[in-house]
Amino acid sequence: MTGVSDEERLARAALTCVAEPGDAVMGALLRICAPAEIVAALSEGRIPVPSTTHDDAGELGLDGLPARVPGLVRALPRWAARLGEAPAATVLDAWRRAGIRLVCPSDPEWPSQIDVLGDARPWGLWVRGNADLRYACLRSVSIVGTRAATAYGSHVCTEMAVTLAERGWTVISGGAFGIDGCAHRAALAAAGTTIAVLASGVDHVYPQGHHGLFHAIRGQGATISEWPPGRTPTRHGFLVRNRVIAALSRGTVVVEAALRSGALNTARHARDQNRPLMAVPGPVTSQLSAGCHEIIREWGAVCVTGAQDVMELLSFPGDEVPGRPRGPLLPRDMLDPLTARVLEAVPARAGRGPARIAVSAGVGFDTVMRCLGVLAAGGFVERCDRGWRLRNGADKHASLRGE
Amino acid sequence: MTGVSDEERLARAALTCVAEPGDAVMGALLRICAPAEIVAALSEGRIPVPSTTHDDAGELGLDGLPARVPGLVRALPRWAARLGEAPAATVLDAWRRAGIRLVCPSDPEWPSQIDVLGDARPWGLWVRGNADLRYACLRSVSIVGTRAATAYGSHVCTEMAVTLAERGWTVISGGAFGIDGCAHRAALAAAGTTIAVLASGVDHVYPQGHHGLFHAIRGQGATISEWPPGRTPTRHGFLVRNRVIAALSRGTVVVEAALRSGALNTARHARDQNRPLMAVPGPVTSQLSAGCHEIIREWGAVCVTGAQDVMELLSFPGDEVPGRPRGPLLPRDMLDPLTARVLEAVPARAGRGPARIAVSAGVGFDTVMRCLGVLAAGGFVERCDRGWRLRNGADKHASLRGE
Repeated sequence: MTGVSDEERLARAALTCVAEPGDAVMGALLRICAPAEIVAALSEGRIPVPSTTHDDAGELGLDGLPARVPGLVRALPRWAARLGEAPAATVLDAWRRAGIRLVCPSDPEWPSQIDVLGDARPWGLWVRGNADLRYACLRSVSIVGTRAATAYGSHVCTEMAVTLAERGWTVISGGAFGIDGCAHRAALAAAGTTIAVLASGVDHVYPQGHHGLFHAIRGQGATISEWPPGRTPTRHGFLVRNRVIAALSRGTVVVEAALRSGALNTARHARDQNRPLMAVPGPVTSQLSAGCHEIIREWGAVCVTGAQDVMELLSFPGDEVPGRPRGPLLPRDMLDPLTARVLEAVPARAGRGPARIAVSAGVGFDTVMRCLGVLAAGGFVERCDRGWRLRNGADKHASLRGE
Repeated sequence: MTGVSDEERLARAALTCVAEPGDAVMGALLRICAPAEIVAALSEGRIPVPSTTHDDAGELGLDGLPARVPGLVRALPRWAARLGEAPAATVLDAWRRAGIRLVCPSDPEWPSQIDVLGDARPWGLWVRGNADLRYACLRSVSIVGTRAATAYGSHVCTEMAVTLAERGWTVISGGAFGIDGCAHRAALAAAGTTIAVLASGVDHVYPQGHHGLFHAIRGQGATISEWPPGRTPTRHGFLVRNRVIAALSRGTVVVEAALRSGALNTARHARDQNRPLMAVPGPVTSQLSAGCHEIIREWGAVCVTGAQDVMELLSFPGDEVPGRPRGPLLPRDMLDPLTARVLEAVPARAGRGPARIAVSAGVGFDTVMRCLGVLAAGGFVERCDRGWRLRNGADKHASLRGE
């Protein structure tokens, strides 16, 4: 199931506790030292020993240590002081039983597109929810915007997210009030998959009013975080978190944003990552559309008016070739047995409701909903008027990419 | 005053009667034959004789005739048949006394930026109004949009046109209901200069409800047309006219337009002429903003939210250099004596109302308004809270460009 050792996972769990996400010194250190070695060195009060003869090591300076020695010297005691917050293996197990897992690079569930962040890549991602994070993000859109959404912004956001979710796109956002919440809710309403990227531990609910929403998101997707369980959000944490929202998806849409909105920070990350950046225009008389117009004019964000525009921009060349069946993004062989069983129960043409699919597949309703989310994100199934059906071209008995 | 002979002006007046504006065959013919020769040939039922050894003549085929001989053969009888509509010299004089003049290429008043149209350049422009057409269009913006303007579109259009007019920009539009009328009215309200490009003769009012508006436009600007007095508009004529709206100005702004709006035809002309094309975004829920969003996304129209964005885009490099005085666009020596007298009466700093300027200059109020329009368009004066004043850097006693 995984190429990540228990030792590395435990070490990475510790790193999420001791170093701030995105910390450049830790990022550089991880290029040349194994996570477990870093943690061991911290606990013994010594400098970590490089575990790799990575090409970069030579450039990094004396004995393979990062050239940023002063930064490292300042950081090590700070990190060591926080080592007490690192979870023991038993705690990690308890969290896992409570539905909270740490997904690490090299895990099959690791969403590798996030590696665009380079040294600022998360040490690991705490995930709480039914979705397979990698699957869910394969065909995904980040939808972000102001907390003070207008009726206009909420309406446009809902229309867009519902349509995207119905077509099997995962909606990623930040779980905040306003546009974020609107995007998550719309995806849920369309029985789609949605991911909330939090700036606190995934056991924490912020804002508190979103308790019910986060619960629902975990049922049809996941809440994820770079911070370990138990952490509450900080102001700076939201900005750091935004790079992950941009990096997880194929592209980012800003629905409504004032000129100095946090959503523009996410947009800047998308731009800097060379990911498609889109914005929804609005009345020029609305301060809450001013940020959207600004990035359309100044940053070259694409002016999108709805889900259709977004899908046209983000679809891969092979996705929508007219006359050619659209295959799933991954071969069927990679599905876990339960998901494969649910796929068997999805009809080819006429739709079937999830309850009937559950009976057919002999699994529970919650499981069916989770598996359908995975299958939709993977391009195997799609919503239709009467429930779910196979996507055109997604032959459930073969791996289309493989044959 | 003019390098255009009476003979040529009379011949071009005839051409505006016999050939449709933009006619490609006439355009090609005018490259090698003088207008008077074309009219003479038409009246004698013969092929026009090339009057020039223009470089192109060789490429155009046998004996310098256009390569499009079949088109010419078909067109000549049709043109000849309409020669009876051409005005006699006495009629031209009578029209001139009635305030209608024909501005020809080589006339000082010819707006030479329109030559971007090449063969489709107007044979001449019928002008009715106080503005000097060339001056007025030197610093001008075309503002176009749907006839079915919403309250939103009207509001944005008014704000934009008022600000542009106050800063000495001439507003060019098509004189139609909706956005066009709104743009003209706003420019008038700001005591600015505005030009209506009509698809009928300038003695004709279409739409009839704009009788008062056209009268006011003539007072502070001009109505102009490629069609001779007496002509009523045709459906096709509006589309042909649109290329002139785009060609006259530095750039074109679409305020509100449905997906199949005539305003997008004007926008296409601006794009094809490589002139800056701008569009005002609006609610994605409004069909009347859909055309604007379309050209922002698909044609690369710049998303503008107000006059400031427009001026930033259209100002020439020297226009707005911080710390450097902005000079007028033309040397003062080129002003006519009356306008120069009005300029003398405009104060340098505190503003002065037009009535007081009229008394100072010893001219009538209408004359002052007309001259202030010319001076504003030329960059000599600007509106301020208390009336008019010299623009920063516009020393009224010197030709800034010349010294």
